[in-house]
Amino acid sequence: MLTKAGTDTEIASLMAEIGRQARAASGPLAIASAERKHAALIAMAEALIRRKDEILAANALDIANAEEAGLTSAMLDRLKLDNSRIRAMADGVRAIAELKDPVGEIIAEWDRPNGLHIERVRTPLGVVGVIYESRPNVTADAGALCLKSGNAVILRGGSDSAHSTAVIHAALIEGLKAAGLPEDAIQIVPTTDRAAVGEMLKGLQGNIDVIIPRGGKSLVARVQSEARVPVFAHLEGLCHLYIDGSAGLAMARRIAVNAKMRRTGICGAAETLLVDRAVASTHLVPILEDLHKASCEIRGSAEVQALFPDAKPASEEDWSTEYLDAIISVALVDGVGGAIRHIDRYSSHHTEAIIAEDERAVERFFNEIDSAILLHNASTQFADGGEFGMGAEIGIATGKMHARGPVGVEQLTSFKYRVRGNGQTRP
Amino acid sequence: MLTKAGTDTEIASLMAEIGRQARAASGPLAIASAERKHAALIAMAEALIRRKDEILAANALDIANAEEAGLTSAMLDRLKLDNSRIRAMADGVRAIAELKDPVGEIIAEWDRPNGLHIERVRTPLGVVGVIYESRPNVTADAGALCLKSGNAVILRGGSDSAHSTAVIHAALIEGLKAAGLPEDAIQIVPTTDRAAVGEMLKGLQGNIDVIIPRGGKSLVARVQSEARVPVFAHLEGLCHLYIDGSAGLAMARRIAVNAKMRRTGICGAAETLLVDRAVASTHLVPILEDLHKASCEIRGSAEVQALFPDAKPASEEDWSTEYLDAIISVALVDGVGGAIRHIDRYSSHHTEAIIAEDERAVERFFNEIDSAILLHNASTQFADGGEFGMGAEIGIATGKMHARGPVGVEQLTSFKYRVRGNGQTRP
Repeated sequence: MLTKAGTDTEIASLMAEIGRQARAASGPLAIASAERKHAALIAMAEALIRRKDEILAANALDIANAEEAGLTSAMLDRLKLDNSRIRAMADGVRAIAELKDPVGEIIAEWDRPNGLHIERVRTPLGVVGVIYESRPNVTADAGALCLKSGNAVILRGGSDSAHSTAVIHAALIEGLKAAGLPEDAIQIVPTTDRAAVGEMLKGLQGNIDVIIPRGGKSLVARVQSEARVPVFAHLEGLCHLYIDGSAGLAMARRIAVNAKMRRTGICGAAETLLVDRAVASTHLVPILEDLHKASCEIRGSAEVQALFPDAKPASEEDWSTEYLDAIISVALVDGVGGAIRHIDRYSSHHTEAIIAEDERAVERFFNEIDSAILLHNASTQFADGGEFGMGAEIGIATGKMHARGPVGVEQLTSFKYRVRGNGQTRP
Repeated sequence: MLTKAGTDTEIASLMAEIGRQARAASGPLAIASAERKHAALIAMAEALIRRKDEILAANALDIANAEEAGLTSAMLDRLKLDNSRIRAMADGVRAIAELKDPVGEIIAEWDRPNGLHIERVRTPLGVVGVIYESRPNVTADAGALCLKSGNAVILRGGSDSAHSTAVIHAALIEGLKAAGLPEDAIQIVPTTDRAAVGEMLKGLQGNIDVIIPRGGKSLVARVQSEARVPVFAHLEGLCHLYIDGSAGLAMARRIAVNAKMRRTGICGAAETLLVDRAVASTHLVPILEDLHKASCEIRGSAEVQALFPDAKPASEEDWSTEYLDAIISVALVDGVGGAIRHIDRYSSHHTEAIIAEDERAVERFFNEIDSAILLHNASTQFADGGEFGMGAEIGIATGKMHARGPVGVEQLTSFKYRVRGNGQTRP
């Protein structure tokens, strides 16, 4: 393994070769049968279990290095593998194997008056580049999702998890070989040099079709600003929960605590609570008491503080802060129109929810807000490909081109048209 | 109108303001009702007819300038408007008015075991930038298609057609006003300075979501290489027609002449004819005789020349040349596998057709070739949004992200998820 080695020219030429190999592998992969891809994925899951001890040993090395480097306990937790996490990784690959194969699916078909029959059919995108940080399981997830969707993938993991990733990758390659698929379909960048990421963002001379970053905000920001190829990503999940005047209090309380506190570190966690001024006197305090009891810090506007003295003052910055922590900003708004104006101004266009019984308020919220996911009477924490029934997801996108919301196997495909005639010429 | 005026800084600030206005208009446009957009389009068509003399006078000015500048007769023809072309333009806008409104359409919906109901709903993309050359009718087509799909549009036409475009644009604005829609929904860049195009390609500070170039290869190449936002385009339509060993000769002859000669200047015109070596002795000569009689120049490989002495020699360059003229390159191949290998190597991934009775050959052709449009027993000249039943098209895309093939109103949309619950929290 080449690590921290090579001049920029050597890195560029290494990466160009990886790109060419990925493109070459993408051809046979695109026309591989559903059965062959399924067999490869099942073999991968088995190899992950069979190589369990090897993975644990490699992971122990990564953990030792990380402890020496003084990584935070949160980072160590993301890096750490154990028996149950390896089993979960293998189960995840098996679950992807069992998804419906998207390639070749007829998305739409119609007949023309001249007798032509037109089909729009799913095809793979080609080559996907995935750039991630310390979670070693992304290697298996991303490798499996790209294979299922018929795409070659170039994986660039974090240096922290390099040893774990190498063994997981070896298990994936075993699966490819067992099914007679090209080994270059899933490649790992064999250097931790940051110049390699730069090369990927430039697209490896046309040999990467889309980049998917998986990691913290600084990684996503770098990818979004430097990439010269399309990116599926979200920079932030600044999700809003709006309690309309027509909301039932019991439901509003239950969903508010879940949306904020079930897991505070995920992108679908609510960061701002907006309460209709019309029900401030009845709904605001019970909801904030629940959150407070659940150890959530409340940061409120002056009005909110007046009604709930335990709230700290919210500054302008709070409305545009994704805490990813047990903190929530709280404001009163004038009905659904006020909520929409606040969300238009501050949202990251990821996920917003309305709690309401008034169907007209829901319609306005659904029509006028342009975020990837809008929910009515449900928690923002459902913003997840698994919860949407897409099987696994490789991330959530907030852009409007191609993929939006959870990115699963379907979103990793393109399409082509197949037109059947019986001798038609164009007049 | 500002023409050829302004420093680069002035241009940049002018364009930035146009971008902000377009983004501001895109909000109300995205939620405008189908009825209102329909009314605007009908009013536009009426205004085009009402302003017919004004358009003709402006066009006469453009034509006089173009003649003085020594434009070719082909360019003058593209620029020229007359009564029937103005009527066709108005009819085109009316046809777009009558298309189904794509915004708000539910593309997919499903239920989850926990009772959540999920809908994927079409939304506008936001702001489209269209960069085109001398055809003034693109102003009306592109303006109408973007409006129908709920997008604001920034149009940058060629300097040759500036006077015609200005009057057509005024008619579009009349329609917007009549329907109470924001005038900034359809803006024309009021300068012919090339720096303005550069600013559009940079995306006007996030205020252009996609760029669509309409014009010759050098325009598309510049846009594709410089754009920092997504582009829907095709650089070339290097379309192949393959005659399989199982093809009926009569159908092959009819389709070959149509695919090449119906109109030679469109992107769906066939540029290379591939004939299965198995039927070279029976099929090749009659097909080439038909083409030759239709005044098509034949450039053949040595084998083709041996069978058809009127063929000129084809050089390596011919296999990758989009003639857009009455010229065709011709080669013999070993069955459908040989055709696929040739097409993989030289195709621009636009449109390819197979003439065959053998269904297995068709399946291989359809599965293994990754071009936007594949046809069986039909002419490549059907590669067109109108022929596909999409109503009008703004172009044909060969990229694999978001839009592929003909770009009509549906391809100018994105989507969002609407999720309805009754109090669900995530476990």
